[in-house]
Amino acid sequence: IVSKEPNNVTTKGPLAYAPQVPKLIDSDTVEVKIDVSHKLFQVAKGISFTGWLFGDSLPGPVLRVRVGQTIKFSMTDRSLDTMQNMSMNMNMKPMPHSIDFHAAMVNPEDKYRTIFPGETINFTWTANYPGVFMYHCGTPMVLLHMISGMVGMVIVEPKEGFPGKVDREFAIVQNEYYLKNNGNYFVPDTSIAMRKQPTQVAFNGKVGQYVIHPIHVKAGERIRVYFMNVGPNNISSFHVIGTILDKVWQDGNPANQLVGMQAALVGPAQGAIMEFVLPEKGRYTFVDHSFANAEMGAAGAFVAE
Amino acid sequence: IVSKEPNNVTTKGPLAYAPQVPKLIDSDTVEVKIDVSHKLFQVAKGISFTGWLFGDSLPGPVLRVRVGQTIKFSMTDRSLDTMQNMSMNMNMKPMPHSIDFHAAMVNPEDKYRTIFPGETINFTWTANYPGVFMYHCGTPMVLLHMISGMVGMVIVEPKEGFPGKVDREFAIVQNEYYLKNNGNYFVPDTSIAMRKQPTQVAFNGKVGQYVIHPIHVKAGERIRVYFMNVGPNNISSFHVIGTILDKVWQDGNPANQLVGMQAALVGPAQGAIMEFVLPEKGRYTFVDHSFANAEMGAAGAFVAE
Amino acid sequence: IVSKEPNNVTTKGPLAYAPQVPKLIDSDTVEVKIDVSHKLFQVAKGISFTGWLFGDSLPGPVLRVRVGQTIKFSMTDRSLDTMQNMSMNMNMKPMPHSIDFHAAMVNPEDKYRTIFPGETINFTWTANYPGVFMYHCGTPMVLLHMISGMVGMVIVEPKEGFPGKVDREFAIVQNEYYLKNNGNYFVPDTSIAMRKQPTQVAFNGKVGQYVIHPIHVKAGERIRVYFMNVGPNNISSFHVIGTILDKVWQDGNPANQLVGMQAALVGPAQGAIMEFVLPEKGRYTFVDHSFANAEMGAAGAFVAE
Ligand SMILES: [Cu+2]
Ligand SMILES: [Cu+2]
Ligand SMILES: [Cu+2]
Ligand SMILES: [Cu+2]
Ligand SMILES: [Cu+2]
Ligand SMILES: [Cu+2]
Ligand code: NA
Ligand code: NA
Ligand code: NA
Ligand code: NA
Ligand code: NA
Ligand code: NA
Ligand SMILES: [Zn+2]
Ligand SMILES: [Zn+2]
Ligand SMILES: [Zn+2]
Ligand SMILES: [Zn+2]
Ligand SMILES: [Zn+2]
Ligand SMILES: [Zn+2]
Ligand SMILES: [Zn+2]
Ligand SMILES: [Zn+2]
Ligand SMILES: [Zn+2]
Repeated sequence: IVSKEPNNVTTKGPLAYAPQVPKLIDSDTVEVKIDVSHKLFQVAKGISFTGWLFGDSLPGPVLRVRVGQTIKFSMTDRSLDTMQNMSMNMNMKPMPHSIDFHAAMVNPEDKYRTIFPGETINFTWTANYPGVFMYHCGTPMVLLHMISGMVGMVIVEPKEGFPGKVDREFAIVQNEYYLKNNGNYFVPDTSIAMRKQPTQVAFNGKVGQYVIHPIHVKAGERIRVYFMNVGPNNISSFHVIGTILDKVWQDGNPANQLVGMQAALVGPAQGAIMEFVLPEKGRYTFVDHSFANAEMGAAGAFVAE
Repeated sequence: IVSKEPNNVTTKGPLAYAPQVPKLIDSDTVEVKIDVSHKLFQVAKGISFTGWLFGDSLPGPVLRVRVGQTIKFSMTDRSLDTMQNMSMNMNMKPMPHSIDFHAAMVNPEDKYRTIFPGETINFTWTANYPGVFMYHCGTPMVLLHMISGMVGMVIVEPKEGFPGKVDREFAIVQNEYYLKNNGNYFVPDTSIAMRKQPTQVAFNGKVGQYVIHPIHVKAGERIRVYFMNVGPNNISSFHVIGTILDKVWQDGNPANQLVGMQAALVGPAQGAIMEFVLPEKGRYTFVDHSFANAEMGAAGAFVAE
Repeated sequence: IVSKEPNNVTTKGPLAYAPQVPKLIDSDTVEVKIDVSHKLFQVAKGISFTGWLFGDSLPGPVLRVRVGQTIKFSMTDRSLDTMQNMSMNMNMKPMPHSIDFHAAMVNPEDKYRTIFPGETINFTWTANYPGVFMYHCGTPMVLLHMISGMVGMVIVEPKEGFPGKVDREFAIVQNEYYLKNNGNYFVPDTSIAMRKQPTQVAFNGKVGQYVIHPIHVKAGERIRVYFMNVGPNNISSFHVIGTILDKVWQDGNPANQLVGMQAALVGPAQGAIMEFVLPEKGRYTFVDHSFANAEMGAAGAFVAE
């Protein structure tokens, strides 16, 4: 399942960049491609590092499929190509990578195997359970590949769609950074990550991006958030100031429903779907209410108009 | 909604100091007042700091309302008045504050806005979901206001009351301290809080108070604990040595029921209602079974007679 | 309930060493004995410490009973005898111990009291709730006794057995180590444990044992894992790479069911029963997806043939 054919396509399929949510493709089989690149990534003003990225983004693109669909997946490790245009970071090396879909049920030895720069891996999997699932690079040292940015979300719809109608849908991936200042730039540091004390925590990769540019909605609309805590280490207690989560589906499965929650407790490598209404016009900050994380960047805002 | 009228009343409404639980007021509208004071607070023998307090207590008073009730709330920031009687702490400054009710659904810009010493904020909210909800000061740096003591619990009863009959009810708020020794006294330190490693953890504000003065009940009684983990950072794994939690309602909503639990996993800024029986006469220690927290003070006892 | 009769028997009853799961004894009353020993225990290559052990093992033996059964329990503190054969560790002292069963409902003052070397405690308890429950030494400083190895799992079957048929059953206990290098050997260190940053994390006591010697099953079999996170401090996010947890019963009670979970969030001192299928032949690594824990040793593998 590994070939050496070069490929300039970096993404293909029912993908979108969070907070956008992709549309389903209505067919039994869906072709999906998510290539790997190495690229300077800015976490916050003055804080950049060499990201190892799926689909040129951090988090990687959100994939949306339906229970029963077969995903024909391919990924090319383009870390060598993408590096050639970079000069500021002398430490960059070609790096083997892989991809592990928590939504899949497959032999990991085979499908999640590591490939080298220039190589392409192809495998097929079927979505069996609805929910919000993590994907990530599974190449050792896995912790390093995760904190370098190789994380993303798959939404799997039930065959009949998620129950209930909503007005808006957003995708939020929460991730922890463990960055060390190395002079002109930062580097992910596994010795910090082993202590589980992040240096930054972000929604969709960038510290406080939705504080500066809030997500716009309308008061009274029913909002559904597809939430994935990619960790790698800590729980998130996701809370929207000014409202209550009407429904929380643990790991995104409607069978696992909690109601009327002030916060959703989401473990590392776990997801949730949350539905709520912003009751009146205003600005509603959302946070990880493990509040040190909010202070480290896990904060954003909805503006209801 | 902010006025400058002075006010000597500090609390009003269906309030009680934990572990006591207040009685509901049976009316469509309930007036509630919880003022803010600054006051020396003793966490443990030899460990005091200048608490920023709701209703002169830490945690703030427990409020009890019912789904559908409208709460006419007011709060005066009396931090300047209360300081005038204090001399030991030279660092005390008047401080703006605010209040955020997780039980409310309101525009936070408006209702949860920050007021200055001498000012009063008034706003009205309606309880929509049953459960156990946090309230806290939401003035930046929020983490500092929380670890300085501005935390409390609201109990919201379902319209028809909580299902089932119990013999005893208690309120327990778990909170983390992050205190630095500053010579003669201690000060809350956000740099410690950012590392999520508390210096003390307490039930109802004071380390080990229910070890010294246990809560008295009778063997065989059905006990309901309204539990709120105000964090600000860590999970609690609440356990009563010698018994099993017959029911756990996550965030206090009877729709979110777990049964036969050895412990209740409660995220930061989350609540739970737990019901259990102490099977025979004896002393039953309760702990946060994230056991370092128990050793840091999150331990108490029931005595069943 | 404490006697001084010496006793050479160290274990008796429906016990097995994890990952094995014992068989039920089909009678109203079950006699169980689990003695305490002190013994050099190897956590990983080059890392040994003086374990305080139930039933000469870490974790202690898995006990399996059924709701309604009465357990006639006894335990002898044999720490003095077992020490006499050891010479490498000069720091070894006789040590009082006790046992606390989370599955029991009893007065802890009486049943969970501390005994001294050479003493035997006897008490009787009845299993009231189905699930997976912790047992541990409850002698102060409790945190020290836990990190020294005094932890184990009880499985309590519903009267009618657990619902559904499975092909394989395994027991996995996750525990954290907080070890300091003291020259030739290691010692459990409560000051490290108070910071909640383990030095190693293990499944069934030994770092990576199931990476080296994986657990063998067949593709397509339904597997049930009895999982206990004995902590003492941190959550576990248990995940099997390559599959999805078909069912998760929180604290092991079938009434507390989650379905289609990518991971099970299990608090410290909490359990879970998980059922899943390995879809095709291959090697399926399982981890605590609080991924620093996986890197510290909480990793193993199933091989499906
Ligand atoms: Cu990678
Ligand atoms: Cu994973
Ligand atoms: Cu304040
Ligand atoms: Cu809050
Ligand atoms: Cu012991
Ligand atoms: Cu315990
Ligand atoms: Na998977
Ligand atoms: Na690794
Ligand atoms: Na709220
Ligand atoms: Na702040
Ligand atoms: Na118990
Ligand atoms: Na202790
Ligand atoms: Zn990788
Ligand atoms: Zn706008
Ligand atoms: Zn809030
Ligand atoms: Zn404040
Ligand atoms: Zn008494
Ligand atoms: Zn216990
Ligand atoms: Zn002990
Ligand atoms: Zn084999
Ligand atoms: Zn995985």
